[in-house]
Amino acid sequence: MIAPRVDLNADVGESFGAWTLGQDPALFPHITSANVACGFHAGDPGVMRATVALAREHGVAVGAHPGFRDLAGFGRREIRVPPREVEDLVAYQIGALAGIAAAQGVRLQHVKAHGALYNMAAADAALADAIARATAAVDPSLVFLGLPGSQLLAAGERAGLRTAAEVFADRAYRADGSLLPRTESGAVIHDEDAVIERVLAMVRDRAVSAVDGTRVPLRVDTICVHGDTPGAARLAARIRAALEKAGVRVAAFRGP
Amino acid sequence: MIAPRVDLNADVGESFGAWTLGQDPALFPHITSANVACGFHAGDPGVMRATVALAREHGVAVGAHPGFRDLAGFGRREIRVPPREVEDLVAYQIGALAGIAAAQGVRLQHVKAHGALYNMAAADAALADAIARATAAVDPSLVFLGLPGSQLLAAGERAGLRTAAEVFADRAYRADGSLLPRTESGAVIHDEDAVIERVLAMVRDRAVSAVDGTRVPLRVDTICVHGDTPGAARLAARIRAALEKAGVRVAAFRGP
Amino acid sequence: MIAPRVDLNADVGESFGAWTLGQDPALFPHITSANVACGFHAGDPGVMRATVALAREHGVAVGAHPGFRDLAGFGRREIRVPPREVEDLVAYQIGALAGIAAAQGVRLQHVKAHGALYNMAAADAALADAIARATAAVDPSLVFLGLPGSQLLAAGERAGLRTAAEVFADRAYRADGSLLPRTESGAVIHDEDAVIERVLAMVRDRAVSAVDGTRVPLRVDTICVHGDTPGAARLAARIRAALEKAGVRVAAFRGP
Amino acid sequence: MIAPRVDLNADVGESFGAWTLGQDPALFPHITSANVACGFHAGDPGVMRATVALAREHGVAVGAHPGFRDLAGFGRREIRVPPREVEDLVAYQIGALAGIAAAQGVRLQHVKAHGALYNMAAADAALADAIARATAAVDPSLVFLGLPGSQLLAAGERAGLRTAAEVFADRAYRADGSLLPRTESGAVIHDEDAVIERVLAMVRDRAVSAVDGTRVPLRVDTICVHGDTPGAARLAARIRAALEKAGVRVAAFRGP
Repeated sequence: MIAPRVDLNADVGESFGAWTLGQDPALFPHITSANVACGFHAGDPGVMRATVALAREHGVAVGAHPGFRDLAGFGRREIRVPPREVEDLVAYQIGALAGIAAAQGVRLQHVKAHGALYNMAAADAALADAIARATAAVDPSLVFLGLPGSQLLAAGERAGLRTAAEVFADRAYRADGSLLPRTESGAVIHDEDAVIERVLAMVRDRAVSAVDGTRVPLRVDTICVHGDTPGAARLAARIRAALEKAGVRVAAFRGP
Repeated sequence: MIAPRVDLNADVGESFGAWTLGQDPALFPHITSANVACGFHAGDPGVMRATVALAREHGVAVGAHPGFRDLAGFGRREIRVPPREVEDLVAYQIGALAGIAAAQGVRLQHVKAHGALYNMAAADAALADAIARATAAVDPSLVFLGLPGSQLLAAGERAGLRTAAEVFADRAYRADGSLLPRTESGAVIHDEDAVIERVLAMVRDRAVSAVDGTRVPLRVDTICVHGDTPGAARLAARIRAALEKAGVRVAAFRGP
Repeated sequence: MIAPRVDLNADVGESFGAWTLGQDPALFPHITSANVACGFHAGDPGVMRATVALAREHGVAVGAHPGFRDLAGFGRREIRVPPREVEDLVAYQIGALAGIAAAQGVRLQHVKAHGALYNMAAADAALADAIARATAAVDPSLVFLGLPGSQLLAAGERAGLRTAAEVFADRAYRADGSLLPRTESGAVIHDEDAVIERVLAMVRDRAVSAVDGTRVPLRVDTICVHGDTPGAARLAARIRAALEKAGVRVAAFRGP
Repeated sequence: MIAPRVDLNADVGESFGAWTLGQDPALFPHITSANVACGFHAGDPGVMRATVALAREHGVAVGAHPGFRDLAGFGRREIRVPPREVEDLVAYQIGALAGIAAAQGVRLQHVKAHGALYNMAAADAALADAIARATAAVDPSLVFLGLPGSQLLAAGERAGLRTAAEVFADRAYRADGSLLPRTESGAVIHDEDAVIERVLAMVRDRAVSAVDGTRVPLRVDTICVHGDTPGAARLAARIRAALEKAGVRVAAFRGP
């Protein structure tokens, strides 16, 4: 019997110029895949270079985390951008990070859309196809991340990409497999022990208990750990230790 | 005897969003290498995609034209940026264009710094090295453009890159091989016949007559045609026709 | 009997850095109120200064034309910005233009939201209130423009501002008084004689014929002339001449 | 005999979007004048609004802190901008903050240039005049800050503005009254007791001991407290307490 395997990803490289955000140095020892901001919603060329260097140092796989061109809103605001333009801005951002990474001898492993772009594309096939098409056109070997059951994963498959289904360690799910919106009470699970129990169950059972008690089957290829909350690094360390103790192999998609 | 050969380059893709600049569609039939703005001083992902498409349609080789992050100043203002940051922003911009180009099956041929970055680096070895290092690190097969005798060309050679010496069709030269600054009278040659005569002489003799009459030997691999002046496309057409009539092969660096 | 009176407004100052847009010098002799872009979707401090100078030279009243922070999209893309942030960005932009204008001894006359902000606020009371509140808070004497019957005009009144109802010279209307979207055929009226006939009728009858033939009563305080189409200046001149010939006084809100 | 009086100023409002910088809430109880970033090098409309609200709450006078358009470089990089453009960007930024402040019933008290703009203008009369002219043109009642003996103060006087000479609590001075550059050892004084002793001496004696022991007479109207170092708020509190204990009145320029 093959041991279960899962990837641990986090959004990193979200500083900009004089402004620092997140706890990348503390987080990198515990994750296996890094989603690096590409300069449109966060990150700048110097931050990207330093983030790729950190990833290389820790043996963490590097992926692009393209977002809307919206520094002021951190890519979290919905912007009505035609799919053709989304395709261009995703190709641009993947290429930019690929350039920064190539300069350090690093090849990109994956692509995960950021913020409002991720959320809008999860439900909008045309946007999702635009992101997937750009990814496949720039480099067809890239792994394409999205919510299980979302338009993003479907678009990745339509574009011929290897896809990875992403679950969230600390978020409540609805019976249809979607995330309970942050505006609802109970959307974020703050109890660390509960989060770890939940992650173990998701990886073991390939299912999650929805807020109404329904058991929702769930494809689980990678677990997203939030990097911008206090204690994020410690939680990531505990999740990883618990997974490994349970016999789960925690490794990047392209890992050995 | 091998026929003389020269490349004709122009700065293109300098529109942004709703704003159009230059006469790219009229210019592309006549040039062999296109320096495409990469979004920091001009250009955006959509403009870059359309520009690469035009280049592909006309069989024109595509190069990156990285500049300072300065949309408001079009990259023409000197900014004191440490070489380490210049290296990052050049790698970023080359990568971004490479991504956009790869999505169309096009590989980059060359890199030419833009505006104030080009001018500052021509005289500043540390800046020039930063640009050349970034270029070589992203893709060591890229051809690296610079003024003959400038720090840029020297840096390109130090970085192990194939270099190309660029002359300007319509600019006056000083006895030391540098361009007469635009602020001096006679810096730009407006008479088209004189420009063509001059280009033919530079390619034939590998030398130019300086403003004081001195004959300045000049390495000539590519001729820069300005794209932002009225009549630019017609002048490019006339230069190309005159060169071809004189038996010069006009072709990109990687051309057949 | 008091002669009918109307204002002629146009969006101006939409250049940015090296990029020029519109035909401001040709347009200014014919309009009475100028909506000046404030740097978020178009315009920069130098363009704003030059535009205010042109307005002063031609005796044209100056107003702020605040938009979303979206140079790449020219403020035409819908962005989900909370009303609180909209209030701040409108206050910022009005203040910025007021500073540029004060430096030339000019006081602002009015405020008209731009592009997607205008369109979204026309139908969204919370956004409209945010724009009106910011306007009133910065300077309660500013005139507030909006579509007749829109949330913008209602919000202006709630905020205690003097309002001005704006009609479009070259756009088709629906029976409910809203504009036929540009995506529908016949949305823009291209025949100049028809446009002029229509403007005269709107000012005379305070009503317009909708696309289905319905007669829609319409408050008409100002007519918007588009500045970004070829022939815009000539059309503005013809509209003004026709209005004046018909005995209509064409003057800014604060005009004599 | 009139009690000596001095203002305590700090640079504040330097956050941007999702990024937080500085310790404004801890600092405001101790300063008398706040230099608020205006969106070009730091700050955004929401940050500016919140910063003005903090200032109002603490009875702190509000001033504009205009800088180069350089978010990525935090306004600390020298950019060669013609004086005419500097004049425009300063007028724009003062106006923007004045708009945000007016919306809260607050009038601006002063203007202090930021970062590279401040440093370049200290030695460049044309730049200094541009900043002073813009300030006087927007509002001639604004107090204009600069290093004693610098071109900024001279320009402020030429423009007819009330000026205020600014000293730095924790910086070493050279015999000519200029600051020892940060690149030199000993440029920043880290010992808090020494800083406080120094501030008391400067206010009492209107002079400072230069690094070579020379006694340099110094006009002292306001003391700059850095807000971006750890412990800044505590140091500000100690400086203020020491000044008040020594009988110095610590108050804004327009204070009672």
